[in-house]
Amino acid sequence: MSEKFDAVDIIRIKRDKGTLSPEQISWTIDAYTRGAIADEQMSALNMAILLNCMSREEISQWTTAMIASGERMDFSSLGKATSDKHSTGGVGDKITLPLAPLVAVFGVAVPQLSGRGLGHTGGTLDKLESVPGWRADLSNDQMMAQLADVGAVICAAGAGLAPADKKLYALRDVTGTVEAIPLIASSIMSKKIAEGTGSLVLDVKVGSGAFMKDEDMARELAETMVGLGKDAGVNTVALLTNMRTPLGLTAGNAIEVEESVEVLAGGGPQDVVELTIRLAEEMLQAAGVPDADPAAALKDGRAMDVWNRMIKAQGGDPRAALPTAKESEVVYAAADGVLLELDALAVGVAAWRLGAGRARKEDPVQAGAGVRMHAKPGALVRAGEPLMTLLTDTPEKFDRAKEALADAVVIGPEGDRPAQQLVIDRIA
Amino acid sequence: MSEKFDAVDIIRIKRDKGTLSPEQISWTIDAYTRGAIADEQMSALNMAILLNCMSREEISQWTTAMIASGERMDFSSLGKATSDKHSTGGVGDKITLPLAPLVAVFGVAVPQLSGRGLGHTGGTLDKLESVPGWRADLSNDQMMAQLADVGAVICAAGAGLAPADKKLYALRDVTGTVEAIPLIASSIMSKKIAEGTGSLVLDVKVGSGAFMKDEDMARELAETMVGLGKDAGVNTVALLTNMRTPLGLTAGNAIEVEESVEVLAGGGPQDVVELTIRLAEEMLQAAGVPDADPAAALKDGRAMDVWNRMIKAQGGDPRAALPTAKESEVVYAAADGVLLELDALAVGVAAWRLGAGRARKEDPVQAGAGVRMHAKPGALVRAGEPLMTLLTDTPEKFDRAKEALADAVVIGPEGDRPAQQLVIDRIA
Repeated sequence: MSEKFDAVDIIRIKRDKGTLSPEQISWTIDAYTRGAIADEQMSALNMAILLNCMSREEISQWTTAMIASGERMDFSSLGKATSDKHSTGGVGDKITLPLAPLVAVFGVAVPQLSGRGLGHTGGTLDKLESVPGWRADLSNDQMMAQLADVGAVICAAGAGLAPADKKLYALRDVTGTVEAIPLIASSIMSKKIAEGTGSLVLDVKVGSGAFMKDEDMARELAETMVGLGKDAGVNTVALLTNMRTPLGLTAGNAIEVEESVEVLAGGGPQDVVELTIRLAEEMLQAAGVPDADPAAALKDGRAMDVWNRMIKAQGGDPRAALPTAKESEVVYAAADGVLLELDALAVGVAAWRLGAGRARKEDPVQAGAGVRMHAKPGALVRAGEPLMTLLTDTPEKFDRAKEALADAVVIGPEGDRPAQQLVIDRIA
Repeated sequence: MSEKFDAVDIIRIKRDKGTLSPEQISWTIDAYTRGAIADEQMSALNMAILLNCMSREEISQWTTAMIASGERMDFSSLGKATSDKHSTGGVGDKITLPLAPLVAVFGVAVPQLSGRGLGHTGGTLDKLESVPGWRADLSNDQMMAQLADVGAVICAAGAGLAPADKKLYALRDVTGTVEAIPLIASSIMSKKIAEGTGSLVLDVKVGSGAFMKDEDMARELAETMVGLGKDAGVNTVALLTNMRTPLGLTAGNAIEVEESVEVLAGGGPQDVVELTIRLAEEMLQAAGVPDADPAAALKDGRAMDVWNRMIKAQGGDPRAALPTAKESEVVYAAADGVLLELDALAVGVAAWRLGAGRARKEDPVQAGAGVRMHAKPGALVRAGEPLMTLLTDTPEKFDRAKEALADAVVIGPEGDRPAQQLVIDRIA
């Protein structure tokens, strides 16, 4: 078959800072998906995109082409508004767990397609799989039935959504081209748009534990994604939120489910509660339900009720005891003072090394492993007091986890405490 | 086996404008040659190098590592000085043919490893293969024997020289990363240094028919290559020469051999004679023979004598009639005036389309095809006078060749003739 364009011509245009036409972009994604553009050509193009950028129009077309590479879901038959949330990933970020049932309380369907963790940020599915019996894989029909009945579903994305993105992401991962804003934005948004949600709230994390360490980069990513969502008719809003320190007091799998259940029971750490409520308000507003009171639904058990039904619908037992780690080791405060810093990346890496995360896609994770924190920045601590408890089934991992934590903690006088703002900005 | 470095880390360093250490570069070339770095990783690295450049030290180490990937030849047992010439490629550039025997006249051995053409620039081996019986492939022993006996050899490079370069060049060709000065310079110089020549003259072409259209880029390439040669102990000098119009009056294969033989017989077009003599002087000076008179050796038949012996040593018959094209078509001048421009790229593309060149490595070439020019810039022409004769065995190609020539010719008043300087600069 004769091809419409030549891969080398396409690469050269981007290499020389030119602009690709919509036809060229559609052809590129289609040709790559069917193998007419080779991996070595696509990786050179990705590097050129990373270094020379793409215009908003190019990114929009790139996203459209990735959506067109696979199936699109359609929730219109539900007869309800739909809303979804995507987080760019952080340490201790269990917000999806209380959030999805909380939003469903107000009659908005939440089709939350989630992923597994890779590296120091945990994956929502890994966390939920610590619930005995719970399964992540649902057919499209099962997902629709659960949305109609329970109103919330958290499950794995099927292979049919944006297959070009799957192939491209695997390539970017081994070619040093993950960190390109046009490619990150189109990767996230192609899946979310193909998923068919009517509205979307993006939680773009900023700080050491986030993918974006830099606020300007995070803002650019957020603005790009909001633009892509709107172009595709999805009511999209983004929050820039702080990931300088972990969210809540747990980073792991079962221990994060435990903390999420505390929040659903009306308790839990203040930052997790605050972000859950704020994101719920944004999702409900985006879905056309502006006057809901999500804080009340956490206090009065309505959110917990949806959670229990959601877990049961996917085979899980919400009353079963969660797995615990076989071994633990405590990290103590080295001085008296105020906890000024508890670095998110360090805690994330420690949890990962303890077994809560994976280095390669095919690795298993330990349900009970992770880091339980006993103090957060702002707390007064005394030398010798426990700061963290490290949890693992494989105690030989304690040493490398403690290495990761070597510079994670800063204790000093009260006046030096930096202001910690949880929600940095809102982009709509 | 555990690897010393990680390919993604190496790519990231270059992507983020960092500097690779000598150990990282050695590992990169070695790992790529043995397959531990995948093509898609190397192409991303190549694009990062193209867009973010490499330092002189990095390019030098990259070249050293490519040389180390294969064998090195050694001509010291010859007991003669050695000198070689490399041209970056142009239209009608047959200079190697008269030059190699001419330099050998003065007792300097010329081990000229050459290539085949791809695209609009011809290949020296393609030209010589139009001589009945002549063969390009010699063993190292045959090459040494011919250098000892005849003093000049023009043959194909063996597969053992810089295999990393062969693999890398094939990759660059399909990934839009040919045009990176660090990669061009290290590709050329790794082969020339591994070949073992004692001195080297680089003919870096500038202009429409050259790889480098821009003089600043050509100068940067020349300076980089001269530095690499000197670092490796090869006495290296470069000339920047004009490739705005073709060299001589022929662009093809057999017709360029014919023109070379005219030069060896003391005649031939003035520009070909001038550049042959200038390059011979540079080669002889670089090889330690500063007082030779190459012009005389063209006039008195000594260069022709070496040519005849060189062709015979490789199985060719220097007296045999050369192949001629089956069909011809004349292009006429459209106006009276001075020929102001005869564009090298257009003539090169026309010759290529007529069958003198190839689009893919495995394509054959036509020995008799090409473009014979009847006037060069500066000549007075009259409307209706023949300007060029197009030659091919496949007359259906005339139309596309004429398309290529559509804007190649500019005829105007005498005063508008731009100065044409053959040798633009010398870099040593």
